Amino acid sequence: MTIFVDMDEVIADAYQAHIDIYNKEFNAQLKAEDCFGKEVWQCVPEEHQQTIKDHTYRDCFFKDLSIIADSQEVLKALSEKHDVYIASAAMEFPQSLREKSDWLDQHFPFISWQKRILCGDKHVLKGDVLIDDRSKNLAPFSGRSIMFTSPHNVNVSNFERADSWKEIADKLL
Amino acid sequence: MTIFVDMDEVIADAYQAHIDIYNKEFNAQLKAEDCFGKEVWQCVPEEHQQTIKDHTYRDCFFKDLSIIADSQEVLKALSEKHDVYIASAAMEFPQSLREKSDWLDQHFPFISWQKRILCGDKHVLKGDVLIDDRSKNLAPFSGRSIMFTSPHNVNVSNFERADSWKEIADKLL
Repeated sequence: MTIFVDMDEVIADAYQAHIDIYNKEFNAQLKAEDCFGKEVWQCVPEEHQQTIKDHTYRDCFFKDLSIIADSQEVLKALSEKHDVYIASAAMEFPQSLREKSDWLDQHFPFISWQKRILCGDKHVLKGDVLIDDRSKNLAPFSGRSIMFTSPHNVNVSNFERADSWKEIADKLL
Repeated sequence: MTIFVDMDEVIADAYQAHIDIYNKEFNAQLKAEDCFGKEVWQCVPEEHQQTIKDHTYRDCFFKDLSIIADSQEVLKALSEKHDVYIASAAMEFPQSLREKSDWLDQHFPFISWQKRILCGDKHVLKGDVLIDDRSKNLAPFSGRSIMFTSPHNVNVSNFERADSWKEIADKLL
């Protein structure tokens, strides 16, 4: 079985990083719970929104992301039974490409370079399962689309859903 | 129609770059014609082979590659009629990722970030045409596989072949 796994919001916690950077730089107290159903930039005053949108163009934004709970253990087990690919829509952010490769080397060394994909749109991926947090990636996929829960997507209802990597393990292991 | 186009030896002249660097550093006179049917490293004395194999791990190797003749004009025309993706097996060389993105920005700006793929193996790409110089990429592709002629592949006979971008234009435009 060929399984594609997204990075941001699925194995790497970009959402919380946006909040942490914003809170630090604006001396704010934003919490993930305040953002349910929205992008982080939609939860702050209008004059701060562009700053948050620009986080992903900064050097080191992707380098230091925290790991989503249990993703390492479950992906390790999955990769021993299946062809597991990391597929990240990273090409919009050229400075992120090396950072993402290094992040995977550090935290997911069992996913070899052969099984890593940095792309733009994901329409052209052929496989059995896609685990992703974005409708735009999940909708065109011809296999089984699993939406990984992130604060921004809690109100989306038209996909099979997993709230945690433990749930992914129950479904696929 | 979805068309995937490889970078090295197809739109970017990595083969000649290996020869140029070798000739400069070893005061040699190697020519592409001397290498027909072989990789560049197979055409030099054994004690020099590892140096050539290591070129692709150097900073700036991919940054300064020459453009394969007519690839810009033909790809521009193709991209106006079809979904053209660049698909490069670059993940083995983390230092190349940003260089390849920048090289495409410079020489192929009409291929937007949405249509760029940096990957490991290409087994998971779903589309109609793959233009590539390597059997290992062309063989598993389920669509039309076109081998783009490079000195190293002149003796491979089991694929449809294009010797130039003019031939690609005749086939696909």
